[in-house]
Amino acid sequence: MELKDNLELIMDYYELTMANGMLESNIGNEVVYFDMFFRKVPDDGGFAIMAGIKQLIDYLNNLSFSDEDIEYLRSKNVFSENFLDYLKNFKFCCDVWAVPEGTPVFPEEPIITVKGPIIQAQLIETMLLLTINHQTLIATKANRVVRAANGRSVSEFGSRRAQGYAAALYGARAAYIGGCGSTACTRAEIEFGIPAVGTMAHSWVQMFDSELDAFRAYAIRYPKNCTLLVDTYNTIKSGLPNAIKVFKEEILPRGYRPYGIRIDSGDATYLSKKARQILDGEGFEDCKIIISNSLDEYKIRDMLSYGAKIDSFGVGERLITSYTSPILGGVYKLCAIEKEGNIIPKIKISDNITKINNPGFKNVWRIEDKETGKYVADIITFFDEKIDESKPYMIFDPQSTWKKKTLTNFKAKCIRKKIFENGKLCYNSPDVHEIQKYCKEQVSKLWDEVKRFENPHKYYVDLSERLWEEKQKLLSQREF
Amino acid sequence: MELKDNLELIMDYYELTMANGMLESNIGNEVVYFDMFFRKVPDDGGFAIMAGIKQLIDYLNNLSFSDEDIEYLRSKNVFSENFLDYLKNFKFCCDVWAVPEGTPVFPEEPIITVKGPIIQAQLIETMLLLTINHQTLIATKANRVVRAANGRSVSEFGSRRAQGYAAALYGARAAYIGGCGSTACTRAEIEFGIPAVGTMAHSWVQMFDSELDAFRAYAIRYPKNCTLLVDTYNTIKSGLPNAIKVFKEEILPRGYRPYGIRIDSGDATYLSKKARQILDGEGFEDCKIIISNSLDEYKIRDMLSYGAKIDSFGVGERLITSYTSPILGGVYKLCAIEKEGNIIPKIKISDNITKINNPGFKNVWRIEDKETGKYVADIITFFDEKIDESKPYMIFDPQSTWKKKTLTNFKAKCIRKKIFENGKLCYNSPDVHEIQKYCKEQVSKLWDEVKRFENPHKYYVDLSERLWEEKQKLLSQREF
Repeated sequence: MELKDNLELIMDYYELTMANGMLESNIGNEVVYFDMFFRKVPDDGGFAIMAGIKQLIDYLNNLSFSDEDIEYLRSKNVFSENFLDYLKNFKFCCDVWAVPEGTPVFPEEPIITVKGPIIQAQLIETMLLLTINHQTLIATKANRVVRAANGRSVSEFGSRRAQGYAAALYGARAAYIGGCGSTACTRAEIEFGIPAVGTMAHSWVQMFDSELDAFRAYAIRYPKNCTLLVDTYNTIKSGLPNAIKVFKEEILPRGYRPYGIRIDSGDATYLSKKARQILDGEGFEDCKIIISNSLDEYKIRDMLSYGAKIDSFGVGERLITSYTSPILGGVYKLCAIEKEGNIIPKIKISDNITKINNPGFKNVWRIEDKETGKYVADIITFFDEKIDESKPYMIFDPQSTWKKKTLTNFKAKCIRKKIFENGKLCYNSPDVHEIQKYCKEQVSKLWDEVKRFENPHKYYVDLSERLWEEKQKLLSQREF
Repeated sequence: MELKDNLELIMDYYELTMANGMLESNIGNEVVYFDMFFRKVPDDGGFAIMAGIKQLIDYLNNLSFSDEDIEYLRSKNVFSENFLDYLKNFKFCCDVWAVPEGTPVFPEEPIITVKGPIIQAQLIETMLLLTINHQTLIATKANRVVRAANGRSVSEFGSRRAQGYAAALYGARAAYIGGCGSTACTRAEIEFGIPAVGTMAHSWVQMFDSELDAFRAYAIRYPKNCTLLVDTYNTIKSGLPNAIKVFKEEILPRGYRPYGIRIDSGDATYLSKKARQILDGEGFEDCKIIISNSLDEYKIRDMLSYGAKIDSFGVGERLITSYTSPILGGVYKLCAIEKEGNIIPKIKISDNITKINNPGFKNVWRIEDKETGKYVADIITFFDEKIDESKPYMIFDPQSTWKKKTLTNFKAKCIRKKIFENGKLCYNSPDVHEIQKYCKEQVSKLWDEVKRFENPHKYYVDLSERLWEEKQKLLSQREF
């Protein structure tokens, strides 16, 4: 089942003025290359987790303009009939390369490249950026949270604080890709097969004459996954004793053990230790302790470092918005133009040196050290360059070229796949379970130094010598 | 035209387990009251701007469950057929009160109250919170940005960094309510009538053999709103001279003056002053200078305080995500239960004193000082209480009750409207233009002290004596 929103005009208006102007200036069909890349990892982390390709594919596959859209554009009195006809008969015809979802990605790499007539490549900018920026942001955050939880399970609980319903639904998807085990968002199970979970809120407890009655009613109704929320009145003095009383009453059918207790307020580190002690003392060593309440990777790490006894985390608002770093600033930049069959690299100069893009039609190679199985560097090359695994390969820092390193005994692979050819989908999106598994594998191939939260080691993303030289050439043609 | 998403199961799974459990425990039809309120204004501001009611209405008006939804829920093997039948025949039947969009609102106030059978009031929690939290967050941020711009125009440019497409579209709406004059999101014009604007990106300039050619081609095509992006190569040495050359070439038809230049990188304060000087010197005093590039209220205020010459701001990622404060933490809490026709106030105790809610079915009054026309306090009362304007009214700080103040010569009005009665819509949502106008008026009735960005004065939100006493009574019945 597909979402049925009208997404075709979730589009910056300037994409339409430019597309119209290019068509009218007789350059609308010139073939160009656009790269999507980002400049900074959220939370100053060492890497991001690619996500959102499936939704980008759905968007591109379904892109067309309705009569209502055309009527609206006509009413603006600036678009030519020629252009409106073009939109009416729009058929996506570009080539698209993208890094598969779940892959760790790094700043400056072209994680997506679009090749096609400028009029089309330009029109898809907003939805392409929006989709990948959002899901990559949340997958990246989720991966941090999951790594902080250090093997304990993490559920995504953020819908109510998500920035709109699409953020709730696709955020749940991205969080799962990043490693969350489940979500509170029911629709995400129908749409993607992500397990939807949840038990009770405080209102459940308040609806009964007593907390004990509320727990009994729940245990009778849900014996298989009996998790009781124990902090409505007082966790240690009321919630926990009442939960234990119910657990002992054998309300649960034979063979079922109580699943857990959830604490949603108070000092989670203290309460979890205390609750663990009491539960263990009563013979409920297998009863899980689930903690929620404005968690993120920093709070989780801190709680665990102080010995909190927690089996599972419910992580809401700070995950679903990537609270401490709520933007992935991916950009979409023209990097080459075809002229008479030749690909002419293009550069966008800027007063701000970090805003200068890498010119040309490019590829991204990932180098794996054969001895350790770890990834050691990515190399951005021109698309027609090959990296020969049988020979030593020298990499150098593109900013400080004297920093050199020679790689030997390595495997080199291109990390991007072609997903559209002449507008036709040529890629099978894996399901989210496969993507999650792949993500976990790929992250395990990064050195711990890159995964650190504080001052992570900067993973090498270098340019091939040919690409570096072309960039210098283009830069030297301009005066600053 | 409506968006056609399937939003009914954008719902926390526990809402379903609770609803099913309540129905099976024979309390599903007990009439309850839930309040939505928030505890903290984003960015530590003095107030928030209510937004999202129109979309909440659309959701509630269209809420039903498809056969596919029911099939999915049945497959979970925990829901009773009785409950699935209830969903199949679901008909919203609650009463809802809400603060109209565009109204300044403050922490702890019940900005929405839902009265109805617990099974229904509980099921709508996620979408209600999500919708209001998101749009109120963005309207609040936009209002801050617009106030920083101090009369200059502000356009919302954030779609590409929004957290999902709904955040782009409804964020554009909320930004307009908060005071932005336009948006880059084309769909927002079709959907809500918000002016969509935009001219060119750097790719336009790069597509032509020279910057001059690019500017000429644009001026010919768009003479009425000729805004040229001047920072592709070098703003002062290249972009601005080329723009002036084109402005002087009389490419624009008679009667049209060049509209503006846009600068998207570099030191905007310096460049805008320099550009103003050059443009004025060439006789283009009316040519506007438009600045974009990761702006927010803090940057705008800073630039203007250093004398930047800016006519218009394009504000993107930091507005559409409320970057410096990306969550409005609105909650939805059971506050009363009807028993035999009596409304029994309910309280949720917490270890964290700020998490204790105000019990009972309530109303919110806003007190306007007749002499100044300014709002001086809000008072939360029981729903059946009246505030008599003809008599002095004593307010007191609910935390420090010795802080008292007697109000005289005031007007008192209830700031909430009934929007649903027995599930039937009984409220006409104004269009966004009216809401924007109303918002501006209402904000002008707040003292400047409340509008400050740094340490704003805390607007009084007090409890009536009766409500305060009931709360103390309920608190005193519990031990901590």
